[in-house]
Amino acid sequence: MIDVLIVGIAGGTGSGKTTFARALKESLGTDCVIVPQDSYYVANTGLPFEERLLINYDHPDALEDDLLIEHLRQLRAGEKVQVPVYDFASYARTQETVTVEPRAIVLVEGILVLTNPLLRREFDLKVFVDTDPDVRVLRRLTRDVQQRGRSLDSVRNQYLETVKPMHEAFVEPSKRYADLIVPEGGFNQAALETVAALLRQYLQGLEDEDGRRFAASTREV
Amino acid sequence: MIDVLIVGIAGGTGSGKTTFARALKESLGTDCVIVPQDSYYVANTGLPFEERLLINYDHPDALEDDLLIEHLRQLRAGEKVQVPVYDFASYARTQETVTVEPRAIVLVEGILVLTNPLLRREFDLKVFVDTDPDVRVLRRLTRDVQQRGRSLDSVRNQYLETVKPMHEAFVEPSKRYADLIVPEGGFNQAALETVAALLRQYLQGLEDEDGRRFAASTREV
Repeated sequence: MIDVLIVGIAGGTGSGKTTFARALKESLGTDCVIVPQDSYYVANTGLPFEERLLINYDHPDALEDDLLIEHLRQLRAGEKVQVPVYDFASYARTQETVTVEPRAIVLVEGILVLTNPLLRREFDLKVFVDTDPDVRVLRRLTRDVQQRGRSLDSVRNQYLETVKPMHEAFVEPSKRYADLIVPEGGFNQAALETVAALLRQYLQGLEDEDGRRFAASTREV
Repeated sequence: MIDVLIVGIAGGTGSGKTTFARALKESLGTDCVIVPQDSYYVANTGLPFEERLLINYDHPDALEDDLLIEHLRQLRAGEKVQVPVYDFASYARTQETVTVEPRAIVLVEGILVLTNPLLRREFDLKVFVDTDPDVRVLRRLTRDVQQRGRSLDSVRNQYLETVKPMHEAFVEPSKRYADLIVPEGGFNQAALETVAALLRQYLQGLEDEDGRRFAASTREV
């Protein structure tokens, strides 16, 4: 067992949660690793492509939380893990994995990381990145059209048909389990500094025998 | 001029904001002082008692923000200030004042500290304590009935007639200016530890010549 602080970072599509996690890691360096929840989409390797297209990827059932939980426990136990690599073009897990070494701070980020009570229990700190829906949809649209070559119509239809209803059913209600709510995520420098200060204090506590440890989340799980 | 970090802590009645501010001060000791916004109710010493009773004390106009802003600027300049003492029984400012010495960290707490843009500009970090309205009203009711000897009917009527509408018109909308939203306030240990870590890091930075300074709030003001 090593001392590991695991932070769950949730928030809707385009909220800025990935930017927030990356900026934290940037600020903390090699003591920190990011585990993205979307590496843990259900493998679906046995399904025909046409059937994979019918899956609702914004629903919690599309994610293999059990494997993520197992990996977080291994990281906490000081063991390295093999994080799956998902192919977003074929909607299936590949044969490859990425080796993740245990680190003092593990950031788990994804739209649905605060939805499952079994997953929530793994987190010492639960953060929800909260951004207005109109800002979020514009960020997603810009990313999907400009970086992923998708049409405006296809992005809009997917957003209205699955992204929005799943956000309202699963992502938004999970906000109530957060210890901290961060408006605008990675674009909110003051919040970033505040959470980074906690994580640096935790790392410092690991160095000092009499250092200050973090009192884990006491909110309802 | 001294290095001073000023934190605004807003939130509705019964949200846990005062508990949050006190717990932060407890954790930081003599480097920290709390300035409650409700010391800055308009003096009203020239008004007959009956007229004072007609004032809506949950409206921003009931507060003398200009004096609070002046005091925060004096504290930042390293000067001590004379904080007014308000008499909640007679609804008027008394002749007394409390001397507040400048400290490296100043916590300003009150339901309306994030409502006025001129006041918001004084804060390096803006926190909103967010608690469900049913939990808040039960806390307020318990406090007013058990500690202040008021009747259930009078608390309920005041709540529905002024507290709730003013909350919805002024307090709740000010949440959008917060850098951090803290569910449950002083009852949220993980959030308390996180904000305390930032403030300790700030104090540490004042000691170290090469210390890390806080990048002040970059959110809209």
